[in-house]
Amino acid sequence: MSETAPANPILVEVTRGSIVESRHAGAIAVSDPDGHLLLALGDVQRPIYPRSAVKAMQAIPLIESGAADAFGLTDDELAVACASHSGDAVHLEAVRSLLVKAQLDESYLACGAHWPVSEETMRALMRAGRRPQSIHNNCSGKHAGMLAAAVKLGLEPRGYEQPDHPLQVMIARIISETCCVTLDRAHVGVDGCSVPTWALPLSALARGFARLGTGDGLPPQRASALHRLVAACSGSPVFVAGEGRFDTVVMAALGPAVFVKGGAEGMHCAALPELGLGIALKIDDGAKRATERALSGVLVALVPEAEQMMAAQLEGELLNWRGISVGRVLASEALVRATAALDDSPRRRAGAVAQSTR
Amino acid sequence: MSETAPANPILVEVTRGSIVESRHAGAIAVSDPDGHLLLALGDVQRPIYPRSAVKAMQAIPLIESGAADAFGLTDDELAVACASHSGDAVHLEAVRSLLVKAQLDESYLACGAHWPVSEETMRALMRAGRRPQSIHNNCSGKHAGMLAAAVKLGLEPRGYEQPDHPLQVMIARIISETCCVTLDRAHVGVDGCSVPTWALPLSALARGFARLGTGDGLPPQRASALHRLVAACSGSPVFVAGEGRFDTVVMAALGPAVFVKGGAEGMHCAALPELGLGIALKIDDGAKRATERALSGVLVALVPEAEQMMAAQLEGELLNWRGISVGRVLASEALVRATAALDDSPRRRAGAVAQSTR
Repeated sequence: MSETAPANPILVEVTRGSIVESRHAGAIAVSDPDGHLLLALGDVQRPIYPRSAVKAMQAIPLIESGAADAFGLTDDELAVACASHSGDAVHLEAVRSLLVKAQLDESYLACGAHWPVSEETMRALMRAGRRPQSIHNNCSGKHAGMLAAAVKLGLEPRGYEQPDHPLQVMIARIISETCCVTLDRAHVGVDGCSVPTWALPLSALARGFARLGTGDGLPPQRASALHRLVAACSGSPVFVAGEGRFDTVVMAALGPAVFVKGGAEGMHCAALPELGLGIALKIDDGAKRATERALSGVLVALVPEAEQMMAAQLEGELLNWRGISVGRVLASEALVRATAALDDSPRRRAGAVAQSTR
Repeated sequence: MSETAPANPILVEVTRGSIVESRHAGAIAVSDPDGHLLLALGDVQRPIYPRSAVKAMQAIPLIESGAADAFGLTDDELAVACASHSGDAVHLEAVRSLLVKAQLDESYLACGAHWPVSEETMRALMRAGRRPQSIHNNCSGKHAGMLAAAVKLGLEPRGYEQPDHPLQVMIARIISETCCVTLDRAHVGVDGCSVPTWALPLSALARGFARLGTGDGLPPQRASALHRLVAACSGSPVFVAGEGRFDTVVMAALGPAVFVKGGAEGMHCAALPELGLGIALKIDDGAKRATERALSGVLVALVPEAEQMMAAQLEGELLNWRGISVGRVLASEALVRATAALDDSPRRRAGAVAQSTR
């Protein structure tokens, strides 16, 4: 079980005063749809769990089964099916509506309960003396989408979260096909919300996201399903995460130029359709502060428009309980070097040109 | 600012299904009072911030100034002055009492406010529609203790948290003397609660904790002050952290055999007075799950009595939102090897004998 591979490089450093107090190692892959890697920093071949980063791929049966059309799902409902949502009222409403359209109710959700990600909503729930329900789980939209697909496919909805349920078998095949990788049954874990999470290399995930964003190399039906899901997320970014959260803020600011989705334990993926690129990164220790800081560095290198809206993220100022500035969350030298190389890549320049002529 | 030193070894691995999903690197020092290192895993010479791990040292002026005696402080109040408390009613009561005895009130606390560490107390506060105050800050006891010491010393209490205030200058000297290390003014940071945190190597911290636990090599007055503080913590462990928290559980189970104190950003220190040893460890990325798991491994290797009470910690089972077992938090091979070597050390055997004949 233990380490034999060389350690991944430090990607993010957290300073306090004049010294580096904490360090986050990790790996990053940037790929085109053919699997050519523009960046491979750290071990991008070791299988890792993508967790919630692949929710858009997990939502494909919702489109391909015909459920989205048959049930008349809105873009907000499609976006929440791809979401790690904050548990705010708008999210719960979209998830409930999705379930009602599939003629199901909350009792079918197998995700388990946790307090809403949104602190404000959590406090409101606590003030009301209530406990969280499955619908507050950040994954409830994904689960509602899986349930709706199962119903449309004529499958037994109960047990939809089990790895041997036909819906999960279908999803595993979709991930495998989209990322051009064989999934190993020895490497399937149980996610926080109880559905299977299949391990695959960051390199394959990055390629999968390049294909997800562009449709390149995918059968037309698959490309169209992904395009519809990504467009729904781009158009309703608040449904994909929530007010003030990284994925929502980035997609709201950059529109269809960037599709971005985080997952637990330091996962984050992104698709840059106009550049024809996919990004997959994992922080080894799972810290979100490092994941978002590292991805910001890569995004800014590839999408110049991202720089201004990410100024605060790049500045990385850390405040203490009295609001005193005590340190910063910064890109390491290794990350700076890697993103500088991306900055100079012909792909970025070509992409910028392609973008300006569209 | 960036990395030049070799990376620290992985100490803790987090598994999911059949693979390691996340990894935590770090460094550990175990020292005797003379500075002989029984264990030096990773870089134990690089200066790091001890954060809240040195609160007992920061509380020394409370004893040496005569404040504890003059104000008739109880052991609970001394323990809360060394605490990172949960913000429960017992803690707030002890902090308020300490302030009242020093003829001050909560308005003097410079620690800033945060929601209580205890989820139950936080929820109760939210249910009541209230906001957290400075007294809920896990450091409010340390601040009350600093204020009481300042009053007894005839110092202006306002500004007691500033690095140039005579009380903080005194505390810096105490840490330097206890750990036998020169503190570098270039390496002082501002802690989360706004007092200075002085960087020093793990090796020096471990030595300081060996001296703190035994008094070896310290002037009698200093040894006696530390003995009184450590005894207060051992006797009232719930005041040092709170119900169910690591430091409280360990000290409640092991009594005076172990003094243990965590800090932010992956810091943890311990004193084993009967073995004459001190432990200092830091997880590079700051994750508490890894800090406590790594320290458990070291403690069990040195104190066989710890094994049974730490069974759940050592098992490290991870449950998801539905209570399904999805993985484990485990010692890495490097940590297992290092603790196995400690297990065989003559010091441990000698210590066990010393313990049984006391």
